[in-house]
Amino acid sequence: MADPLGELIGELARLPGIGPKTATRLAHHVLRRPRAAALRLAQTLLAVKDELVHCQHCNAITPQQPCRLCADPQRDRHRICVVEEPFNIAPVERTGEYNGLYHVLLGALSPQRGIGPDQLAIDGLLARLDGIDEVILATNPNVEGEATALFLARLLKPRGVAVSRLAFGMPVGGDLEFTDEVTLGHSLSGRRPL
Amino acid sequence: MADPLGELIGELARLPGIGPKTATRLAHHVLRRPRAAALRLAQTLLAVKDELVHCQHCNAITPQQPCRLCADPQRDRHRICVVEEPFNIAPVERTGEYNGLYHVLLGALSPQRGIGPDQLAIDGLLARLDGIDEVILATNPNVEGEATALFLARLLKPRGVAVSRLAFGMPVGGDLEFTDEVTLGHSLSGRRPL
Repeated sequence: MADPLGELIGELARLPGIGPKTATRLAHHVLRRPRAAALRLAQTLLAVKDELVHCQHCNAITPQQPCRLCADPQRDRHRICVVEEPFNIAPVERTGEYNGLYHVLLGALSPQRGIGPDQLAIDGLLARLDGIDEVILATNPNVEGEATALFLARLLKPRGVAVSRLAFGMPVGGDLEFTDEVTLGHSLSGRRPL
Repeated sequence: MADPLGELIGELARLPGIGPKTATRLAHHVLRRPRAAALRLAQTLLAVKDELVHCQHCNAITPQQPCRLCADPQRDRHRICVVEEPFNIAPVERTGEYNGLYHVLLGALSPQRGIGPDQLAIDGLLARLDGIDEVILATNPNVEGEATALFLARLLKPRGVAVSRLAFGMPVGGDLEFTDEVTLGHSLSGRRPL
């Protein structure tokens, strides 16, 4: 006997951060809503697989080649900001502080998970250094992102390009009392004159 | 310019309990996984809409008429357990303490949300009382579920059927110190001799 509801719950529970209870709640929500809502979700699920590719230059997710940012003549073509994942581009863009190009590594170095330099899009980055003055390493502020940034810095500096790293420190709106000592240590050692 | 990723994030964020950040994370997960995984999820989303109906007797979700429980000759046909939603049946079944029939109201009374008796499957319940000895009201232990249980009790008792309500009390494994006073009050007033 087919069990479509059980199958949907099973498929939803494969998504990251969705446990069996949330999957059950979501599946029953789909059941209660009109078929058109389920159809829209089903179609958009396939559209992202069928209509999007990685940009041939920067590995961003894009419906056309090259991506909007790589194609934009207004962008500063002398800087590359290196991020781990395609969805790390949007938060940098939202700052309004950066107008250069991007390069997505598609991951970070992780000996535990068996991810070495060969699994990352590093060759593509090296091939783009012509005319680049600065590479900004915007990998995540965790062990893997730091290791990746140090690895790339050692690789890039001998090639005569300036290499910089995102600043670590107190988050705006934070509180000294509730800031962990590692962050506060970075905040102290990176202090700036006023 | 079509934006399939933005559309998928938008559709996912319509689901209950899924905010924009979780929707973004899920959408990028779909992007990273094989197309076959997205296809399975898309197909099961539509299958629950296309292959499932409400049982004509009890309103449970079922692929055939009547549902498995209503069709089962082993079930006790003299008791009906009344629940708010189809997904409330599974937890009662898992207790192994109940072998009767069910009736799903498809909601609970809620003046705030404009849900009155006419929006609930109460007529269907009244039409099933022939041969029934006991109706167990297993609506949720909250304001709406309590109001619904009281309303149904007043409706059912004059028809000569025994009406009972799920017991309230301390959850097993709970702790007196961390039990709220309303639950503890119910636990006290519902105390049983040992």
